[in-house]
Amino acid sequence: MKDSFSLAQLAQELGADLRLAPGSDSNQKVQGLNTLQDAGAEHLAFLASPNYRRFLKTTKAAAVLVSEEFVEECPVTALCVADPYLAFARATALFDTTPEAPIGIHPSAVVHPTAEIGAGVSVGPGSVVEAYAKLEPGAIVGANCYVGEGSLVGAGTRLYTGVVFHHNCSIGAHGIIHSQTVIGADGFGFAPNKGSWVKIHQLGGVQIGEDVEIGANTCIDRGALGDTVIGRGVKIDNLVQIAHNVKIGDYTAIAGCAVIAGSAEIGKHCLLGGCSRINGHITIADGSQVSGNTFVTKSIKDTGSYSGALSFADSSTWRRNAVRFGQLDQMARRLKDLEKQVQALSQKSGTDD
Amino acid sequence: MKDSFSLAQLAQELGADLRLAPGSDSNQKVQGLNTLQDAGAEHLAFLASPNYRRFLKTTKAAAVLVSEEFVEECPVTALCVADPYLAFARATALFDTTPEAPIGIHPSAVVHPTAEIGAGVSVGPGSVVEAYAKLEPGAIVGANCYVGEGSLVGAGTRLYTGVVFHHNCSIGAHGIIHSQTVIGADGFGFAPNKGSWVKIHQLGGVQIGEDVEIGANTCIDRGALGDTVIGRGVKIDNLVQIAHNVKIGDYTAIAGCAVIAGSAEIGKHCLLGGCSRINGHITIADGSQVSGNTFVTKSIKDTGSYSGALSFADSSTWRRNAVRFGQLDQMARRLKDLEKQVQALSQKSGTDD
Amino acid sequence: MKDSFSLAQLAQELGADLRLAPGSDSNQKVQGLNTLQDAGAEHLAFLASPNYRRFLKTTKAAAVLVSEEFVEECPVTALCVADPYLAFARATALFDTTPEAPIGIHPSAVVHPTAEIGAGVSVGPGSVVEAYAKLEPGAIVGANCYVGEGSLVGAGTRLYTGVVFHHNCSIGAHGIIHSQTVIGADGFGFAPNKGSWVKIHQLGGVQIGEDVEIGANTCIDRGALGDTVIGRGVKIDNLVQIAHNVKIGDYTAIAGCAVIAGSAEIGKHCLLGGCSRINGHITIADGSQVSGNTFVTKSIKDTGSYSGALSFADSSTWRRNAVRFGQLDQMARRLKDLEKQVQALSQKSGTDD
Repeated sequence: MKDSFSLAQLAQELGADLRLAPGSDSNQKVQGLNTLQDAGAEHLAFLASPNYRRFLKTTKAAAVLVSEEFVEECPVTALCVADPYLAFARATALFDTTPEAPIGIHPSAVVHPTAEIGAGVSVGPGSVVEAYAKLEPGAIVGANCYVGEGSLVGAGTRLYTGVVFHHNCSIGAHGIIHSQTVIGADGFGFAPNKGSWVKIHQLGGVQIGEDVEIGANTCIDRGALGDTVIGRGVKIDNLVQIAHNVKIGDYTAIAGCAVIAGSAEIGKHCLLGGCSRINGHITIADGSQVSGNTFVTKSIKDTGSYSGALSFADSSTWRRNAVRFGQLDQMARRLKDLEKQVQALSQKSGTDD
Repeated sequence: MKDSFSLAQLAQELGADLRLAPGSDSNQKVQGLNTLQDAGAEHLAFLASPNYRRFLKTTKAAAVLVSEEFVEECPVTALCVADPYLAFARATALFDTTPEAPIGIHPSAVVHPTAEIGAGVSVGPGSVVEAYAKLEPGAIVGANCYVGEGSLVGAGTRLYTGVVFHHNCSIGAHGIIHSQTVIGADGFGFAPNKGSWVKIHQLGGVQIGEDVEIGANTCIDRGALGDTVIGRGVKIDNLVQIAHNVKIGDYTAIAGCAVIAGSAEIGKHCLLGGCSRINGHITIADGSQVSGNTFVTKSIKDTGSYSGALSFADSSTWRRNAVRFGQLDQMARRLKDLEKQVQALSQKSGTDD
Repeated sequence: MKDSFSLAQLAQELGADLRLAPGSDSNQKVQGLNTLQDAGAEHLAFLASPNYRRFLKTTKAAAVLVSEEFVEECPVTALCVADPYLAFARATALFDTTPEAPIGIHPSAVVHPTAEIGAGVSVGPGSVVEAYAKLEPGAIVGANCYVGEGSLVGAGTRLYTGVVFHHNCSIGAHGIIHSQTVIGADGFGFAPNKGSWVKIHQLGGVQIGEDVEIGANTCIDRGALGDTVIGRGVKIDNLVQIAHNVKIGDYTAIAGCAVIAGSAEIGKHCLLGGCSRINGHITIADGSQVSGNTFVTKSIKDTGSYSGALSFADSSTWRRNAVRFGQLDQMARRLKDLEKQVQALSQKSGTDD
């Protein structure tokens, strides 16, 4: 990554229309990105939400990524784009400082002779690549990773440190799996037998599409019979549990600590909030949004926004209401009784006449 | 594992009564397992729940594991068994393709000279086995694992990749610990001291019985004074948190992302649903079932089924009801007032006469 | 650590006033710590809560850490202290058996020549220390850890097995990070682009203060622009998710499986219960307490105790009440209608006169 970019270079890289402020110079160097409030004269800032408009007038940024609508209000050089948030995302790639992985197989890595290693692959220290595994060109296997027998890591896909990618699993090109995530551990399945449990060996694998990002310390279990399937462009955060035989549709995003039980099928372009929990064997319609902490107990057939979390209160207020929750059915019956009594009274008194 | 089994072999292995369909041959080979719907002519299928009975008539499986009750309806060869689900579980062992671990200590493993290594043990690349640790015969320590000082891994027990098994912990024979799980990290204990915290060093260990399976990225903390104890035959899923000094009774099963706080005692043969959360210092009676997402706030003395999760709704419906939750105590008071008023009205109007 | 301490030594180490029981000897050796109920003649016990007072009279401990208030009731030697729980915490350090890490760099570790390694540092087998990383004197990097480029591990800080500490992160002196925890993985940020997602590269780091302890399998993500910041003396349990740009104030304690969404700011000296979940972009006042399983949906401006979890019930009772929750708004409207009707009836009948 370059250390700095001129305003002109940034405009070109980001497809922006450069509107130089008076006295500015298109050769001026920008060293990094920052918010409107915190940016200094070496920074590119951005206005992606009207909520931050109030910071625009006083920004000290070298330039601001801004839509046509607000360009007039911009006191410094504007990089005018249709979608400033998208342009900001693209700009982060320019200023990323994540160290690049050295090409080649570290001498301390243990790569089976039958493994197929593409051009430009990086295998970090202490990593293990088992028999018949395939690392496509440009794949990066970080330090202390594990790629199981017969598994495939797609072109340019990066496994960060300590990723465990078990046998007979695959991930497509241009993916990222963050540290310590486990792909393809056994699903949780046992048959009861006179009070003890007999293991159901998990015979399927995990198939992950292209352009998928998976967070740290996440688990995606292998299927019991068929595979667990993660679609193209899916984004999954940290500490997420995806059980065996789950299917996740393309481009769905799943926030941290979400839990998806076995054989659930999530549609395409869904958003699952943090700590949302999806029951097993249900389906969720394409394009659905599930709020954080919602427990989805049955299938969602209609695309929409769904919620299920209570808010909080100071502890004494909360306790008073929570106790009433345990009386709710009784309250409902008393309410119904009252309605009958009041109706009777009304009739008697002629109120309803 | 064999690549295929004849129908006769399967019947023998699974203790099934072979009922050949007309024109079938007991030497016919079966290559794998599948569901009734998806099975082809090379597959063994199973009917374990009446819910799937409708798929029986049209199955294309080579044979079906089925109970006597449904054998008449089976259009193909039946493997008649008392408990088809149990037989299916046993069949999965026959077709399991999990790679076997090579016997011996990988040259890159670091095994302390005082460690006791049984016959037929496997220690994978990059693993560390500390002083006085004991790996009983046939134990498998996968790649990049850690077995701490004085710890014991029972005969035939398998630690998958990256398992951290800290000092003075033990697991019995025939167990499985999935990847990246941490056994015996410090419990969370601090004494307050003028606004800061003084660590309570965790002096106990973790004792795990025979035939225990523990999922990936799970944590079982060591005890503060005594040990954390996991009974025989316990099954624990992924991303589960088991705090210090918890006791789990024999054959209890704990689904993914469950959380058990310090010193809780779970009985034998309990089922804890996914994301269930058990308060510290409480006890749960043997044989109890706790539904997913239930927060068990106090001891369960009577064996039974317990729940505590709300379902969900479309976001606008949910919001309307959730707001009312915050008015629940007030609603209960108003309800009581109304009851008094209506009673007074009734007496006055003679309705009650 | 010593194997045993005399009563006199313990009194000195713990700043306690030794009140020898008749016939006791200040040279008597104590081998370990235990509870009042379970202690034997070789143990030091403690009375830290009045709840356990009933066990004092029958304790068989060699001695008891006890406050002046209860010293009269102590049937054995008393070690009288102002705060027995704090003294107990200090005593656990004396009897800790956690193996010490050997000083030096294990030959299988991969340490970049530009890394700066202080005096007395330990780097375990299989660990990787990248370019320009700095391990201050006495730092301990356990087996199979990763310290990224330019990162800093403070003096005496211990990373247990498998800790991943990514580039441009830092932790101060005297800290502990438990096994498999990931510091500095990318925060979860994407810009939508015609149905797909464009990654927002995470350009910030993670800054962790002195005297911080972080549990196992926890994630603390790097910041998107600025840093994620964990204050001095903060204690974090296992399986906790801390998203990008979160700020945690000094001495705050966070119990297991808590989830803090992006850019939330938690004050100093807060207590967040297990499984508590904090929304993104909110602030929590210094000294606030959030109960376990509470979902904090908006900022807490006033220091206090906050709750948000429902308790549980037997499943049939629970179901009856949970169904009513979905009728709550309707119930509230019916209640209001009734109030109007009853008022009308009352006026008509002259009840209110």
